[in-house]
Formats: sequence, structure tokens, C-alpha cells
Amino acid sequence: MFSYTITHASTETGARRGEYQTPHGTFQTPAFMPVGTQGTVKAMSPDRLTEIGAEIVLSNTYHLYLRPGHRIVDELGGLHPFMGWRGPILTDSGGFQIYSLGALRKLSEEGVKFTSHLDGSTHFFRPEDAVAIQEALGADVMMCLDECTSYPSSWEKTRASMDLTLSWARRCREAQTRSDQALFGIVQGGMYPDLRRQSAQSTVDLDFPGYAVGGLSVGEAKGLMYEMASIALEELPANKPRYIMGVGTPEDLVTLSGLGADMFDCVMPTRNARNGTLFTSAGRLVIKNERYARDDKPIDETCGCYACANFSRAYLRHLFMAHEILSSILNTIHNLSYYLGLMGRIREAIVTDRYTTFQRNFLSSTEGENKNDAD
Amino acid sequence: MFSYTITHASTETGARRGEYQTPHGTFQTPAFMPVGTQGTVKAMSPDRLTEIGAEIVLSNTYHLYLRPGHRIVDELGGLHPFMGWRGPILTDSGGFQIYSLGALRKLSEEGVKFTSHLDGSTHFFRPEDAVAIQEALGADVMMCLDECTSYPSSWEKTRASMDLTLSWARRCREAQTRSDQALFGIVQGGMYPDLRRQSAQSTVDLDFPGYAVGGLSVGEAKGLMYEMASIALEELPANKPRYIMGVGTPEDLVTLSGLGADMFDCVMPTRNARNGTLFTSAGRLVIKNERYARDDKPIDETCGCYACANFSRAYLRHLFMAHEILSSILNTIHNLSYYLGLMGRIREAIVTDRYTTFQRNFLSSTEGENKNDAD
Repeated sequence: MFSYTITHASTETGARRGEYQTPHGTFQTPAFMPVGTQGTVKAMSPDRLTEIGAEIVLSNTYHLYLRPGHRIVDELGGLHPFMGWRGPILTDSGGFQIYSLGALRKLSEEGVKFTSHLDGSTHFFRPEDAVAIQEALGADVMMCLDECTSYPSSWEKTRASMDLTLSWARRCREAQTRSDQALFGIVQGGMYPDLRRQSAQSTVDLDFPGYAVGGLSVGEAKGLMYEMASIALEELPANKPRYIMGVGTPEDLVTLSGLGADMFDCVMPTRNARNGTLFTSAGRLVIKNERYARDDKPIDETCGCYACANFSRAYLRHLFMAHEILSSILNTIHNLSYYLGLMGRIREAIVTDRYTTFQRNFLSSTEGENKNDAD
Repeated sequence: MFSYTITHASTETGARRGEYQTPHGTFQTPAFMPVGTQGTVKAMSPDRLTEIGAEIVLSNTYHLYLRPGHRIVDELGGLHPFMGWRGPILTDSGGFQIYSLGALRKLSEEGVKFTSHLDGSTHFFRPEDAVAIQEALGADVMMCLDECTSYPSSWEKTRASMDLTLSWARRCREAQTRSDQALFGIVQGGMYPDLRRQSAQSTVDLDFPGYAVGGLSVGEAKGLMYEMASIALEELPANKPRYIMGVGTPEDLVTLSGLGADMFDCVMPTRNARNGTLFTSAGRLVIKNERYARDDKPIDETCGCYACANFSRAYLRHLFMAHEILSSILNTIHNLSYYLGLMGRIREAIVTDRYTTFQRNFLSSTEGENKNDAD
């Protein structure tokens, strides 16, 4: 039901081009997964997602568990028919959202007790619950419950947290009952090279069909993030998909793909879209700026998305200033098109064996520089 | 450039089936015009509007004048390219929005002084300005500046208001410079049959290419509204389009089409969509109701719109409860599909000479009864 095929490995970098077959279809890697937190990618209908080339979406277990409830989703046939998305879906374990609740959660070896951000009700997630809930949701790929170490943390605290994540990974593996879902292990280890390495090796020892690297982009410097990702990626088996969780900027996707990452997710393109920050081949564009009031050019003249093909910056600025829903719709179509288009360029550069050049050009260009008219 | 053709007149009622040719294409009548207040039909992209069969949209002069400003729209080629809508557009005169400002506006024979709801700035609209602004916007059909009499009003006050509207209609006609736009006159006269008749006759004397009936649905009883509409419609020439402004419910569209109205606009389908009230063949459905939490049926099993073809009531309830943008998108697609579908049924009933039966069945059905699970 699942198979991961590397169709081309970069000769000069760690980058790989592959395809991951799941019960709901195959997606091309390196892949970016638009985030559909509450069972919908904000402002996007499934047909639009298909139109712009999305092949897999991510949804959040924590949010769906609280609302509408995983039992309701299960009764309605699972997340695929519920949200009207026929392609592959990945659900996270809820671990990161619970971690983000801060003082509202309490950890023990057994699991995590937390307070709902919606109504203050108390809940308890054991690793077994995270799996059972994800089985009810029915995504193609599910994630082990992990603890995301806060940053900064001492070596001792990070080590204890890593051990907890490993112990939970073992229990998640035991708890899985469905064979039509792939359960991925998660590498933690904070910002300590030895712990990252050890976490990766021990997680690999548990033999998952795929591996994620978690606990990145939590406040650390960019260089440190790349270093930790690199250490973890090196330890992960070449023949299995490698997913960097919750990352990142266009530059991150280019850099981490070069280190051998295959899958990414991030709210950046969708959230920025709603805030009016647009990704373009000439850097970021903040649509509310006065300078766009009479600008009849599209967001990005090199982009062929529905927003760029049909509307001017002046109109998009108007929609943003007028708080129109169409502003979020068109900006999201554009930003996700940019991200998905970038993944296409990454895959193309791998296949044509010019990844080093591509990466250098990208990172030194306006696009890679993040030249931003918000700054 | 403009021509109105009645292709079929009902033998039993005043209803007529026609088509109105404009510089941006032809639309079928009786027609419903989705409202695009700020240059966008809320939550709808132009391709979706086309997909659901919209042929003409309405936009609001008052709103576009204030933001982004008619000069900017003009610089960008007019409203059609600005909003990416290639079909016919009608702009109102701003009169009704200014009337709705209440204490924030002051009328004189010369025009109306008003305070912007956006920033408190002061503005003055003469009838000539309303035309100049609408010429800058470039809609296919524009409307004379009128005064909408408040309800209730004395006969004397209503008469004076009607006279002002007539005097302004004359000035609007004089002010028009473009021949690729049709300027419609507006019948007022409040709730007085003699004034409605007189207003209609005097407006017709000014010889406009089309006529609207304004000042309806301002708080009066339904029967009174139909009576006033009927009196006005009887006075209007049969060979010109007749537009009932700002009305109404599905029952209103059926009833008023039976009296010979050709065009309608109303925020009801779009605003109700965002508030979660959906129009169906079995009456209205309030999607937030608990009873839909596990309901795997579509909004309306007889509807083929994108929302009904792909999503359950349970999912739509979830989106609504979770305040997701997709809730507004899908609900709007459905409600506008319902309205546009209803217009198709109205036109079909006219052409097949069974309007009386259609109207009786519709008004006595659940659909016509407005049986509402909100009640």
C-alpha cells in the first residue's frame, strides 16, 4: 500500500527526487504539504488545491479531536470524505499543538494532560490515544506522539525529553492497528548534536516506514537549525521518506531539500497570505503598501496562478484594505502556488543534477534574500 | 449597444422572459444580480460566479467612490478589468447607501451632503456627480441618484421626496456623456398608490432605456410592498427592462416576476450564507444547528452546486463552528446557486406558460413557506 521510490539522487548534494505511494495516491518529493489545521486549508477549497498542484495536505489531530471530534469524522467515513480531499493526507499527533499550550499542559511518562483552548475542558492524551484518534481520522500518514523540547533547554532536560519521545514512539508503534496508514517516527534532541544523533539512531531502530525531524524552528538561529536537521537527516535511512516538521521559509525548503529532506509543512504561505504578505520571484511583497494602489501589474509577472492571471496589485490591495474574503482567497492561491512551484523547481534541479547551482542562485537572488518591502 | 428583447410573455400573468444585450454581453431575464458591494461578490471569485451561472453582477457606487476611489478604478480601465468580471455590471447611484447613513446625511435640492462611514470625512453628491462617478466606474447599467423615502412618511413628505427624485433624474439624464452605458430612471412614491403612479409616469416621460422601482422593502408589510411594486410596474413600458431594487426573498422573486419585473438584486443570499442560513428546496436550513453535526447529507439533495456535490452538512457545520473562511465560500456558492437556479425555474415557467401553477406551487410549498429551522 505504501512504497517510497527514490527516482533520482543528486550527485553533488544530499538532495533526492522521489515519489511516495499511499492508499490515496502518489505524491512527488521533495513535497510541500499545505496546512489544513481544522480539516480545511484556510480560504482554499479542495478543487483549488488540486488546480494549483497540491498533492498532499496536512491536518491537525489536536484541533480535529477537539472540534468536531474524531468520532464524528470517523462516523462520516474519515477525513478524506469529510473534507472532500481525495489525495493523501498526513495528520500530526497533536504533540506540537499541546506543547504550544505552554502552562495549559502537564506531562508525565504516561502521557500529557492539557486544557482545551476552546472551552477550558481537560483532556489526557497517551501515545495510544494519539494513534487511536489518528486511526479514526484515517489519514494516510500519521505521526507518533512526541514531546517538543522548548528552546533553550539544558542537555539533561533535552535528553530526558528525547527519551520520553522514544518511549512514546515505541508505544505508538505497538498501538497501531490499521495497515493502511503509515506511522512515522519523530527525531527530537533539541540543539545538541549528540542527542540529535542518538534520537535519530534510536528512532530508526524502531523501524518506522518514515521519519520526521521535529523540534526545529522553535527560536534557534537559522544556522543551528540547519545543523541539527543535517545531523538528523544523515542518520535516517536513505530509502525512507524524511519529513522536516513545521519548516519553513522558501530558503529553508531549498536548503533542507539539499540536505536530503523529502517533506515539509508550514503555515507560512497561508498565514502570510491572509496578512497580505506575498511571495514572489522578486522577494516578498506587502500588498497593503500605498505604492500598489494604482499598480496594474500582477503580484508576480512570472507566476501563472489564478490570482496573477486575472487581478492587479491595485485590486488585491483594495480587497485587503476592504477586508474582503476574496483577499484571503486570492492571496492564498498565490502563496501556495509559489510554494508548490518552488518545490517543482527544486525537484527539477535535482533531476537535472544542478542542485548546487540552483541553490546558490536561489539563495543569492532577491527571492532568496527575502528582500521585503515590509522591512 | 443595448437592446432588450422580450422573447416570451406569460399569457396568464404579467411575467415576461427576455434578454438584455449590453456592451459586455447578454443576460437572461428575469435575472438576479449577485451583489458585489466593494467590487467583489463577498467570498466569490469571478470564475466561481461564472460557474454557478451568474450573468450580471451589481456593485455599489457609494462604497467604490470612498474606497478605492472611482478615479483609481478608472485609471485601471474601469470596474470590469479591475474586478476581473467580464460580463455585464450594474452600479447603483449611491443614493440608497447615503439614505441608510441616516443622521450622517443632509439633503438639499442641489444634492446630498454625507459623512463617510469609513473615516468621517465629508462629501457632497450632486446628481451630476453620481453620473460622473458611475461613468468613471464604467458599468453597463447605471442608476439615477434618487432619494429613498423613509417608512412611514406622510403623503406630503413622500411627494416632496418624489419630486426631488424626478428633478435629479432629469439632471442625471442631462449629465450623461457616455453612450456605452445605459442610465435607468428610478420610480419612488413611498407607500402611496397615487404617488407611485405619478412617479412612474413622470419618470417614463423622461424616456430612460430602463426603469427601476426603488424604496421598497424598507419596513412595510409584504402585501403593501407587492401592491406598490404592482402599481409602478403597470405604468412602465413593456418593451424596457424593469428592475426592482434591493428585493428580496425567494418568494418575492417569484411574486414580483409574476407582476412583470425583470431584474433583482439583494444581499440576502450572500449575507445569509455568511451567517449560516442556507436556502433549500425544503425551506431554510440553519447550518449551525446541533442536528447537523453527524448529518452526511448535502445541504440540498436536489442541488448540484459544488458545495452540495462535495460536502456534507456535518462538514459545513464544522466549518461554520470553526469560523473557517471555506464556510463562507461554500455557503455563498450554494445560496447564490439556489437564487440563480430559482431564476432559471422562473424563466422556464414563463416560457412554458405555466407561471400561475408554478407560482402557486412554489408559494404553498415548504420552499415558499420559508419553513425555517431557525424559528
